[in-house]
Amino acid sequence: MSDPGTYALNSKAVAEATAVWLEKRGVNKTQIAELALFLQKDYYPDLSIAECEENVDAVLAKREVQNAILTGIQLDVLAEEGKLIPPLQDMIGNDEGLYGCDEILALSIVNVYGSIGLTNFGYIDKLKPGILVRLNDKNDGQIHTFLDDIVGAIAASAASRIAHRKQAQREIDRDEHSDEVPLA
Amino acid sequence: MSDPGTYALNSKAVAEATAVWLEKRGVNKTQIAELALFLQKDYYPDLSIAECEENVDAVLAKREVQNAILTGIQLDVLAEEGKLIPPLQDMIGNDEGLYGCDEILALSIVNVYGSIGLTNFGYIDKLKPGILVRLNDKNDGQIHTFLDDIVGAIAASAASRIAHRKQAQREIDRDEHSDEVPLA
Amino acid sequence: MSDPGTYALNSKAVAEATAVWLEKRGVNKTQIAELALFLQKDYYPDLSIAECEENVDAVLAKREVQNAILTGIQLDVLAEEGKLIPPLQDMIGNDEGLYGCDEILALSIVNVYGSIGLTNFGYIDKLKPGILVRLNDKNDGQIHTFLDDIVGAIAASAASRIAHRKQAQREIDRDEHSDEVPLA
Amino acid sequence: MSDPGTYALNSKAVAEATAVWLEKRGVNKTQIAELALFLQKDYYPDLSIAECEENVDAVLAKREVQNAILTGIQLDVLAEEGKLIPPLQDMIGNDEGLYGCDEILALSIVNVYGSIGLTNFGYIDKLKPGILVRLNDKNDGQIHTFLDDIVGAIAASAASRIAHRKQAQREIDRDEHSDEVPLA
Repeated sequence: MSDPGTYALNSKAVAEATAVWLEKRGVNKTQIAELALFLQKDYYPDLSIAECEENVDAVLAKREVQNAILTGIQLDVLAEEGKLIPPLQDMIGNDEGLYGCDEILALSIVNVYGSIGLTNFGYIDKLKPGILVRLNDKNDGQIHTFLDDIVGAIAASAASRIAHRKQAQREIDRDEHSDEVPLA
Repeated sequence: MSDPGTYALNSKAVAEATAVWLEKRGVNKTQIAELALFLQKDYYPDLSIAECEENVDAVLAKREVQNAILTGIQLDVLAEEGKLIPPLQDMIGNDEGLYGCDEILALSIVNVYGSIGLTNFGYIDKLKPGILVRLNDKNDGQIHTFLDDIVGAIAASAASRIAHRKQAQREIDRDEHSDEVPLA
Repeated sequence: MSDPGTYALNSKAVAEATAVWLEKRGVNKTQIAELALFLQKDYYPDLSIAECEENVDAVLAKREVQNAILTGIQLDVLAEEGKLIPPLQDMIGNDEGLYGCDEILALSIVNVYGSIGLTNFGYIDKLKPGILVRLNDKNDGQIHTFLDDIVGAIAASAASRIAHRKQAQREIDRDEHSDEVPLA
Repeated sequence: MSDPGTYALNSKAVAEATAVWLEKRGVNKTQIAELALFLQKDYYPDLSIAECEENVDAVLAKREVQNAILTGIQLDVLAEEGKLIPPLQDMIGNDEGLYGCDEILALSIVNVYGSIGLTNFGYIDKLKPGILVRLNDKNDGQIHTFLDDIVGAIAASAASRIAHRKQAQREIDRDEHSDEVPLA
């Protein structure tokens, strides 16, 4: 990063662009919430899709997450338009097995909610339930090399956030919660 | 992680143990705040030590951070007591150059506040200003192989949090802030 | 790390201690190789267990990996002996859902073989095939909070190494390989 | 990643494109070697620039590193041409303080050589000696938001590799080295 004081973009513009681009690329909040529900429903049988959506919203509100989403979608879109330099065009265009920058960007999202999301991210990324099936379809002309990992990472982060919040709630119920705020 | 529902420790106990152990190992909030101030004073000349302390407090309230602190201090204390298995005893006891698990635990703290803290962590860890001088003193019988990296990571995280908050404030002042909450 | 010149442990001692401790904790090379085979058999139907063992050996030869193994096993053993400070004793002893330092150490292993191992690590850690079933058995008096993640990480790393090597071999067969050495 | 078997790019093409693009962007091997020498000269007074260049070569031969270099340079070039989507164009174009995807990609390079490179990466990225001064010059019309972090990461990785190799050599000299190969 450069001097944080010299330049700083309007956060609202970054948040809005993130929402617009997710929609343009065919991903909505409910689809991501369904992945979070898939990851957590065995642990919290009463967990509702609405609660998952709230947690997805909280993850999407983080600037770090927005940066990763915009960067990943940008590379997907350019690959779709055939505008990348040759080896990158081939690697991203084919979701090449030895190319891992998509996993790296996704990891930066997971990290914000702590290491407990790592396992969920890997699991969902391999199993590809729900929306991830479509994002991985290689026959529809669309390229989502980055976005499928990013969507999995957002869902895994929402699942982590749910786990932290549920524990906090359990302690409040037992009247033993500290005044500290859990992961926002 | 195991099933997040089966067992969960009282968060208050974890938070309190973290505070107690930091004090036992000779580290207080103000010393960490001074490191954060050192990292950010050129960018925000009006930044006060009190504001840095508030940000250090917020970092210390995170469970992920508390886990890393307790784990690192535990290994330092056992090394000091000579109770580790031989090669680990030698490596941690001598803050061995090729042993990097201390950096790894510290990185997990920095990651919670996003990648912009990475640079500050590396910089302060190498320069070792303030409290870090004492923690690195190899001649006082104490072993702080993990704690010096952890303290640097907390300070770098507080510095990241300050940068995110200052930007949010700047936008509120310009009346263009979104309703989204920045990094907690 | 400290000055890398001042002190440095005999690498042979670290490598030997790692082998001894893995065996003491009931894990052998073949069991890890079976996990790697499980991860890669759909992609390379001819992959043999012997080839997987070779790749596990190569991963285990890395100093960074040995450091993580020894540190994780140390914490497991101390938890088994009830010798950790209270909250850590409870968290590691119960493989607590919100404690993620085990995932962090495991990630440092995966990272050495690049980001493509991340997904495999998460997948295997959640599915828990083979040796991971026993390591996760909470009813045998043994504690393997760190070791189960570490074993999964070694297997995922071996799987990454196999993928890199197979690609190199494919290119040699097509006579288009560069002189560069793939990931060691 | 996708199925590693279905598609795989010619590694030689990736390696060559990396070399060509580093040169196009004004970075050569000697400049990176000078950064590695800067990081290690206090520990190994006899370290030569030729030895540092050899280590930089070895880092640059890794596919994971090449992927990160190409991806980062691609984003820099597109930012220079004004072709990114608006908020990303502004963030990358201005090396915005709250944008950290450049640090993330760089970290993926450092990780391949283990956690001991983290500190060196942060230090050099903040201090900006040698070639990093020019890459950070905001007044020459060029944008190197990603490349400056990447170059620092390659230098930090070469420094890690040097530390691992020097230790191996020291043990060979003392005739106590194991047969294991250190980090490639």
